[in-house]
Amino acid sequence: MAEHMDPEEFRRAGHAVVDWIADYWATLGQRPVTSQDPPGALAAALPAGPTAHGEPVAALLADLDALVAPRLTHWQHPGFFGYFPANTSGPSVLGDLVSSGLGVQGMLWASAPACTELETVMLDWLAGLLGLPERFRSTGPGGGVIQDSASSATLVATLAALHRASGGRWRQVGVDRRYRAYTSTEGHSSIEKAARIAGLGRDGVRVVAADPQTLAMDPDALRAAIRADVAAGDVPAIVVATIGTTSTTAVDPVPQIGAICAEYGVWLHVDAAYAGAAAVCPELRWSHAGLEYADSYCFDPHKWLLTGFDCDAFWVADSAELVEALTVLPEFLRNAASDSGAVVDYRDWQVPLGRRFRALKLWFVLRWYGVEGLRAHVRSHVALADRFAARVRADDRFVLAAPHPFSLVCFRLAAGDDEASAGLLERVNATGRVFLTHTRVAGRFTLRLAIGSPLTTQAHVDDAWELVASAAG
Amino acid sequence: MAEHMDPEEFRRAGHAVVDWIADYWATLGQRPVTSQDPPGALAAALPAGPTAHGEPVAALLADLDALVAPRLTHWQHPGFFGYFPANTSGPSVLGDLVSSGLGVQGMLWASAPACTELETVMLDWLAGLLGLPERFRSTGPGGGVIQDSASSATLVATLAALHRASGGRWRQVGVDRRYRAYTSTEGHSSIEKAARIAGLGRDGVRVVAADPQTLAMDPDALRAAIRADVAAGDVPAIVVATIGTTSTTAVDPVPQIGAICAEYGVWLHVDAAYAGAAAVCPELRWSHAGLEYADSYCFDPHKWLLTGFDCDAFWVADSAELVEALTVLPEFLRNAASDSGAVVDYRDWQVPLGRRFRALKLWFVLRWYGVEGLRAHVRSHVALADRFAARVRADDRFVLAAPHPFSLVCFRLAAGDDEASAGLLERVNATGRVFLTHTRVAGRFTLRLAIGSPLTTQAHVDDAWELVASAAG
Ligand SMILES: Cc1ncc(COP(=O)(O)O)c(C=O)c1O
Ligand SMILES: Cc1ncc(COP(=O)(O)O)c(C=O)c1O
Repeated sequence: MAEHMDPEEFRRAGHAVVDWIADYWATLGQRPVTSQDPPGALAAALPAGPTAHGEPVAALLADLDALVAPRLTHWQHPGFFGYFPANTSGPSVLGDLVSSGLGVQGMLWASAPACTELETVMLDWLAGLLGLPERFRSTGPGGGVIQDSASSATLVATLAALHRASGGRWRQVGVDRRYRAYTSTEGHSSIEKAARIAGLGRDGVRVVAADPQTLAMDPDALRAAIRADVAAGDVPAIVVATIGTTSTTAVDPVPQIGAICAEYGVWLHVDAAYAGAAAVCPELRWSHAGLEYADSYCFDPHKWLLTGFDCDAFWVADSAELVEALTVLPEFLRNAASDSGAVVDYRDWQVPLGRRFRALKLWFVLRWYGVEGLRAHVRSHVALADRFAARVRADDRFVLAAPHPFSLVCFRLAAGDDEASAGLLERVNATGRVFLTHTRVAGRFTLRLAIGSPLTTQAHVDDAWELVASAAG
Repeated sequence: MAEHMDPEEFRRAGHAVVDWIADYWATLGQRPVTSQDPPGALAAALPAGPTAHGEPVAALLADLDALVAPRLTHWQHPGFFGYFPANTSGPSVLGDLVSSGLGVQGMLWASAPACTELETVMLDWLAGLLGLPERFRSTGPGGGVIQDSASSATLVATLAALHRASGGRWRQVGVDRRYRAYTSTEGHSSIEKAARIAGLGRDGVRVVAADPQTLAMDPDALRAAIRADVAAGDVPAIVVATIGTTSTTAVDPVPQIGAICAEYGVWLHVDAAYAGAAAVCPELRWSHAGLEYADSYCFDPHKWLLTGFDCDAFWVADSAELVEALTVLPEFLRNAASDSGAVVDYRDWQVPLGRRFRALKLWFVLRWYGVEGLRAHVRSHVALADRFAARVRADDRFVLAAPHPFSLVCFRLAAGDDEASAGLLERVNATGRVFLTHTRVAGRFTLRLAIGSPLTTQAHVDDAWELVASAAG
């Protein structure tokens, strides 16, 4: 018999690991945000393989402290302002711990009924929380599912769109290279990647111009592109509109885009990976206008809704179409419940077969915070971004590079070339107290400050401003 | 300011959740393996949305007991013998808890250096542990990465193969529908799904005959299929061979298949989703002969190596080719480390952009068990399967439907039609003490007993046999 960790040993070791995490969080603000080591430092410090006989959990925790933690970019650090946040929270960690402990696999309703049903209900809860159109609720032909990421959501939407564009022949005969996908110059790289995976290639993606001021997709340019393709004998299959673009959180005009999609019979997928969380606040729901046109919509609770990676919430208006596009049914997965048609089998809503019980972390987050707690979280970040932006605006060494409707502020030096702004970013990050990343806006090197961590307070944002202002010299 | 869970509250609640899991494990054997409720029972018991103000963790734990746990199929239950196991272990749960607590996102080396480096090293450790060919180690042009699932690994391998088959044009022009993917009649459904996603359609998949006795792919049939396609002007792009098929754990003859792939210049992907774990035992490595021909190989530590879902280990012989197939580089992800070429950015090895720190759970498992502990685990399951198979063989009411090289036993009633065996399965599962699933072997309804949970002992397997034998009447 193999020796496994018994429940009592798990209890003891589990308490120690929880304590380790609590201590990590309590001391996070005092650590440098990023690692100071060159590539390879951790790899060089590890042995060539595991020992013949096991080691205790204490040895692992010691190595976490000595070897791993110092070589991390600390995403939950109050001075983390990079990329978009992937913020988590205590309740999310605990919900995910329960998921790990149960160790169920929810590929089918029958393989873990509660995993499937809790997920359906959580996606309905989220739809209500964000004020999404009725068509996405599970009470009608629509419904929601958890994907690992917005990238996968866009891929799945693309596949369903190709299936529809082909009149259902795509499953059998493969992709027609005349199908076209549309997004703006500001659309996320995952859109091109999804098109590539689906076999459309770079040639299958039409990159539509954005308005130079708002950086939102220009609907006239979209219409022109669709018209030109139709005239050339190509087949518009999917438009991906973005609510909250990655560079600057621009909001594409979904009402106009949706009307064009309806006119030409094109699948509309709306990618709100980051900014979707804003819709928990009624005063920010203007950003979600036009969603009743969408065939699919996604946002990442793992970005700005306190739910640890990975958790993308993805809805479709017609789940039967999605299932038809993705299902393959071998004998070994057949079961009475699926055959009855009375249940949802989420394996048919995604790329992988197996699935983890991810709805638990959402359940923990939504219940522990409550509606008002989540709103307060989003509002506090928006207010902090406003505060930082006001500092930038008031200092004529800087310019704001774009509007800041949510919690991302884009700015650069008013004078000097790209190198000057890049150098500024480097000096600020070298302090180890904050971490910002960059983008290009209208070709210009631009710093991005995304309010990210739940630990970030006004003091941290003011500190970030001090560092930026003084590094500007 | 939003109210978040502070480290001390997390510590207290975390201890309670750990205790909940320890109690769950301690009482698991006394629960029915499957839910007795009809579809919709949990959904009907949940409110329409979250409360306005938050609830405590204690309320969630109470609902876990009252509402969720009774509606699960308990995959870690000692009487769980269904599908393939998705077994986990205490060390895996703890490693994953650390991952949740750190909350880092490892899309780039720069976004979490230790996340990337630990993953590279863990995949090298695993390669050593399984005795995989040198070509898969990160010390040369090859290397490994964690995917969420074997399905995704097969998809990624398919994409790289299409890229190669096109001479690099696939990224730009899209997929050519003359490309062909090959697998046996026993290949997993994820192979057809990957081909569908990649735009080949059902028409792009050639299903090669298996030997009727061993249920392993017939290499002559593979060669004939490739020849016929080449003659017809089609382009063989990828062969997926299986070590341990889903229905019966048949082992395809990889040495012969590999030689054919080499001759025709076809990408060979080897899917050992379940049986890969067997290779930790030197006496079971015969199953991995011929792997030096493979361009890519994967197995699921989340199936039979005590690492919680999701964790698929995937290796390629040439990582540059994979990265070339999958990379898209927007400005906002550029950074000095990536530009230097000195680091691995795992986002380019997978479909999604974001990634969780999954190497931690592997690190915990490999170190806590040690090499001998993992071997003892696999050996104990193989011995239990042998024991069950011996009972079946000794009882002439039953026949073994296939060889049982690992820990899956396939059997059916010797007399009677498919309904008789299906009825037997139903009666056995209705006891709530065990859970078995089924497949078809040579068209006949066949029961599958997969030794799955780390909690399963000889007594549980003997109990399963008693239930089967007495239900057979
Ligand atoms: C608008 C947008 N879409 C998609 C993504 C991809 O996110 P994921 O890692 O969930 O795939 C991002 C990530 O920043 C994003 O900003
Ligand atoms: C041989 C084989 N390949 C692939 C898979 C798919 O596994 P995953 O859920 O990791 O995609 C399975 C699942 O049982 C399998 O047996």
